[in-house]
Amino acid sequence: MRKGVLTPDRDPQIEEHELQETRFSPETERVKRNNNVREYQREEDGEEEEESVEGIFESREVPSWRKQLTIRAFVVSFALSILFSFIVMKLNLTTGIIPSLNVSAGLLGFFFVKTWTKMLHKSGLLKQPFTRQENTVIQTCVVASSGIAFSGGFGTYLFAMSQRIADQSGDAARGVKDPSLGWIIAFLFVVSFLGLFSVVPLRKIMIIDFKLTYPSGTATAHLINSFHTPLGAKLAKKQVRVLGKFFSFSFFWGFFQWFFTAGENCGFNNFPTFGLRAYQYKFYFDFSATYVGVGMICPYIINISLLLGGILSWGLMWPLIETRKGDWFPSNVDSSSLNGLQAYKVFIAVAMILGDGVYNFCKVLSRTLSGLVSQLREHDSSSKTKYLLGLQLEAFCNAYGAGLTDWSLASTYGKLAIFTIGAWAGSDHGGLLAGLAACGVMMNIVSTASDLTQDFKTGYLTLSSPRAMFVSQVIGTAMGCLISPCVFWLFYKAFDDLGLPKSEYPAPFATVYRSMAKLGVEGVSSLPRDCLVLCYAFFGIAILINIVKDALGNRWGRFVPLPMAMAIPFFLGPYFAIDMCVGSLILFVWERLDAPKAEAFATAVASGLICGDGIWTLPSSVLAIVGVKPPICMKFLSSATNHRVDKFLTGSS
Amino acid sequence: MRKGVLTPDRDPQIEEHELQETRFSPETERVKRNNNVREYQREEDGEEEEESVEGIFESREVPSWRKQLTIRAFVVSFALSILFSFIVMKLNLTTGIIPSLNVSAGLLGFFFVKTWTKMLHKSGLLKQPFTRQENTVIQTCVVASSGIAFSGGFGTYLFAMSQRIADQSGDAARGVKDPSLGWIIAFLFVVSFLGLFSVVPLRKIMIIDFKLTYPSGTATAHLINSFHTPLGAKLAKKQVRVLGKFFSFSFFWGFFQWFFTAGENCGFNNFPTFGLRAYQYKFYFDFSATYVGVGMICPYIINISLLLGGILSWGLMWPLIETRKGDWFPSNVDSSSLNGLQAYKVFIAVAMILGDGVYNFCKVLSRTLSGLVSQLREHDSSSKTKYLLGLQLEAFCNAYGAGLTDWSLASTYGKLAIFTIGAWAGSDHGGLLAGLAACGVMMNIVSTASDLTQDFKTGYLTLSSPRAMFVSQVIGTAMGCLISPCVFWLFYKAFDDLGLPKSEYPAPFATVYRSMAKLGVEGVSSLPRDCLVLCYAFFGIAILINIVKDALGNRWGRFVPLPMAMAIPFFLGPYFAIDMCVGSLILFVWERLDAPKAEAFATAVASGLICGDGIWTLPSSVLAIVGVKPPICMKFLSSATNHRVDKFLTGSS
Repeated sequence: MRKGVLTPDRDPQIEEHELQETRFSPETERVKRNNNVREYQREEDGEEEEESVEGIFESREVPSWRKQLTIRAFVVSFALSILFSFIVMKLNLTTGIIPSLNVSAGLLGFFFVKTWTKMLHKSGLLKQPFTRQENTVIQTCVVASSGIAFSGGFGTYLFAMSQRIADQSGDAARGVKDPSLGWIIAFLFVVSFLGLFSVVPLRKIMIIDFKLTYPSGTATAHLINSFHTPLGAKLAKKQVRVLGKFFSFSFFWGFFQWFFTAGENCGFNNFPTFGLRAYQYKFYFDFSATYVGVGMICPYIINISLLLGGILSWGLMWPLIETRKGDWFPSNVDSSSLNGLQAYKVFIAVAMILGDGVYNFCKVLSRTLSGLVSQLREHDSSSKTKYLLGLQLEAFCNAYGAGLTDWSLASTYGKLAIFTIGAWAGSDHGGLLAGLAACGVMMNIVSTASDLTQDFKTGYLTLSSPRAMFVSQVIGTAMGCLISPCVFWLFYKAFDDLGLPKSEYPAPFATVYRSMAKLGVEGVSSLPRDCLVLCYAFFGIAILINIVKDALGNRWGRFVPLPMAMAIPFFLGPYFAIDMCVGSLILFVWERLDAPKAEAFATAVASGLICGDGIWTLPSSVLAIVGVKPPICMKFLSSATNHRVDKFLTGSS
Repeated sequence: MRKGVLTPDRDPQIEEHELQETRFSPETERVKRNNNVREYQREEDGEEEEESVEGIFESREVPSWRKQLTIRAFVVSFALSILFSFIVMKLNLTTGIIPSLNVSAGLLGFFFVKTWTKMLHKSGLLKQPFTRQENTVIQTCVVASSGIAFSGGFGTYLFAMSQRIADQSGDAARGVKDPSLGWIIAFLFVVSFLGLFSVVPLRKIMIIDFKLTYPSGTATAHLINSFHTPLGAKLAKKQVRVLGKFFSFSFFWGFFQWFFTAGENCGFNNFPTFGLRAYQYKFYFDFSATYVGVGMICPYIINISLLLGGILSWGLMWPLIETRKGDWFPSNVDSSSLNGLQAYKVFIAVAMILGDGVYNFCKVLSRTLSGLVSQLREHDSSSKTKYLLGLQLEAFCNAYGAGLTDWSLASTYGKLAIFTIGAWAGSDHGGLLAGLAACGVMMNIVSTASDLTQDFKTGYLTLSSPRAMFVSQVIGTAMGCLISPCVFWLFYKAFDDLGLPKSEYPAPFATVYRSMAKLGVEGVSSLPRDCLVLCYAFFGIAILINIVKDALGNRWGRFVPLPMAMAIPFFLGPYFAIDMCVGSLILFVWERLDAPKAEAFATAVASGLICGDGIWTLPSSVLAIVGVKPPICMKFLSSATNHRVDKFLTGSS
């Protein structure tokens, strides 16, 4: 939720790499975009001079820290937290690709409180005007809360422990822990607050002493500041209107689609846009407003990488490997079993993700250390080196690394934990579950720490009180620890087939995480020989691509695809990549036709599409729980099957 | 094809009534629109003064009549004739609603020859520049040719003679004549050329002596003149580009839809947009680009009338009458048989169409006669009164009536012929076939005559030689007499279910015409009692609505629906009315957002949609003939049926 928007002051090469099971940030594009937005604003308003931001706010008083924490702010935060928890949960459970939603969080937060204060102002009841500090408090709270929907691992480590996923991998004997509301909430409270408290002492060093950039935090601060200038408020209002339009469109589109989904393989989600044969290999456009929106937010190269990976795997490799049935894998196993073709899909993807992770871990570690050394040389901060030691090392590393580069490697650390703890515990002592749990502890601490350090940066730049920020984070984290498990629980109860490969919510990364844990406890020897060779190859390829990418530099390197993104469609299929490329295409055409407008409103359009479809999952899961079934099945049959069905229907009616 | 566009100088009340089984002309709206188009042109080009049209052309020489007839003109005419024959034939056979396509004919004619001459000009081979006279020749030829696709009665009287329609009415014993290429071509040649030659002597009286307005002819002349001014050519070029864009979109949309139509009730044409229950009563949006386009061209009141008629009949009357099954009609007959509910649908519609026809016939006759008397008083034209006598009386009346008011009542005369000739021949002597054939003779003569008089007016205003016009008409008519039957033959051979009620091409008016002929020879006594009462009621209501409409005057009368339009969905169902209302809605919103642009380009967009989808029927019928079947069926099943089908498919595979 944090990786941001409108960051004019960062290395554009780096943040193409905002993948963490998989959270993207679109900053590369945004650097250019930001200038265009300004251009648009000027065009629209005819203003020529830009004042310095703090110049505009000079006359306004900064409220005391208690006044920054208003009840309305937490009411709005609570509503937005639910909204974004739904969206993130949906994304978690469908593909695991989560774009940066903090522009929409910012916009919507601004919109709600602004409407609220305007209404009160008109009725004469307004006691306190809406300040940017209050806005920062909302933003912080929402980010803290909905961040847990991601780091809570509902689509990854936590769900990987369940019976359903274990059955798919056929290793239920290695240990199973089914999700239940109680232990999830307790677990999240412990690990999240661990992360939260571990980061507070870091604030002063990193933000005030080291003055690290924290590009996303800076971007969010700029965004919030801009909302509270007259010019920015005007643009924000327009953006909110656009967002609202596409929100309703996307919501009603989701609603309309719902009517046609009685039964399996029904509805627009299974539309064989390119024919039935292509559909078999998951090449189709599935009319998902969410992923078209996600595609509009993600940088072009990510969408292209996804599509490339999809074509490579489902267009080439799987059909080829399929012909080796009975030779490379037993021919009598179920297609979704991890003993059959599915093993190739999952483990090759895992190999590629790990290759990418290892490369980037090394890269960040070396950068962080060298950066730290030079910073320490400049500062007399020997007393603070104690933070480098002890338990906080990784949280610090990540927060520091993120401060420099805006990478969050939370899930890389998580994978590392799976392997090390899994291998240490061994296969006989429930090592699989231990590995997954360790992953959860690691991911929560690390990502809470890095998200919240970014928040402190935002607070610093909007003159918000650190004390108010911290209270907001505590409340937000507490909210998240309650809301996210409940939202997950709703999904889990509403959709019986949650986590099954061909369902609406396949939760693909759950299988991947469990497979990684299994690999950790059993070692690579458990894999079939041919699969292992391919895994090594793709592990190497991932590292190679990264080296080539970095060696080519920004100019040419940005055309090299990202191995991490390429790996995702390996087991999911390329359908969502096609959606996202449609989003890219729309943005591309729009930019060619009217660049300033596209830059100013593309994020609003995309956010509208994502939020509308996301919030539709709330009523849709409620409908599923109360047992309301959609009335119609839109079915796609081959000509021959259709003939048989027609005969059957005439015969039996 | 003739009723036109851009007529600033006509009575706007009248041409809402451009229905003749059912050809609409959108002039009411166009009057306002025309001013907007000019506004758009001025805005775009910054020109303030308008020169008189002939002032612009002063310097240009008028070519000799031989030079007006170029080979390239006839090549282009031939291509366009095929295009428009396909479109008109498709419309004939789906709903019978045919909008005015002469703007697109004009635009496309201009576009083709202009491209051609430009290319030649660049290569230095151009011998003769493109003149407005040549353009008029093309327009005339295309109109003459594609007009026959309508007046040839392929969706009405001619197809009504066939075995297939006779089987539906259950009166094959009364006489059947299946269509065959030979006699259709021969028949069309005879009757069309009769109409053509009968109109030539009228030209001088009506256009030069009487100086009748002929609004559509005038409009077409204005359009062609405008193309050949620099300003108009610029706008025309833009319009062509827009038309081309929507043409391709619509063509590929048709192509895409095709893939999903394996089997009956498959594909987008059967999309239960508002649920399965609404679909049962034909309330659904069928994604037809053609009818969305048609809806954009037709005046709002026509679309509203269609929808009203649909709601009244399929939403109210038929469900109510259905409950009287076994009482009002036998319960053991097939739903498409004319002895069951279908009888109510067809005969109530027939009654309403006849009521409307009778009212308007009387109205036009009285207007024509009074106008004629006053004209004759002014002119010393006793020698010409001979034309009022003899066989040409009705052709003259129609040509004269059309000259005054732009109504073409060809199909009203046709219906009159069915009844009079049918009743005269009687039921024992093949009266049914005689009535239908007489209808054909009448409709062809009358509509050829009125169309061609309009052409002469166009020629007069573009300084085209009457001799060139006549040659063009002869060639165009000959083309039409060959092309139309061939196009029909293609449809007839390609689609086995042509003319069946639930097929893609139900040819609804064929049944209506046969039913009318049956009524003519048997009298009303053959109808069931309850049906007869309703028929009388609706006959009366149609006349009443017309009286109210005329009594209210233009201000309020334009809000009164048209009985003729209301009757069409009675037997077809409201689905195409929904399409057309979607077209209206698009136009309405567009006009609110950007009126000048909407006015300038709406017709181009609509024409593109209609032409693209229309021309897709060419490859689609070729595919059907060579036996290429679409690969996929997009089926819509109720939840329960889907469950059964799923079980059947799992069980049998």
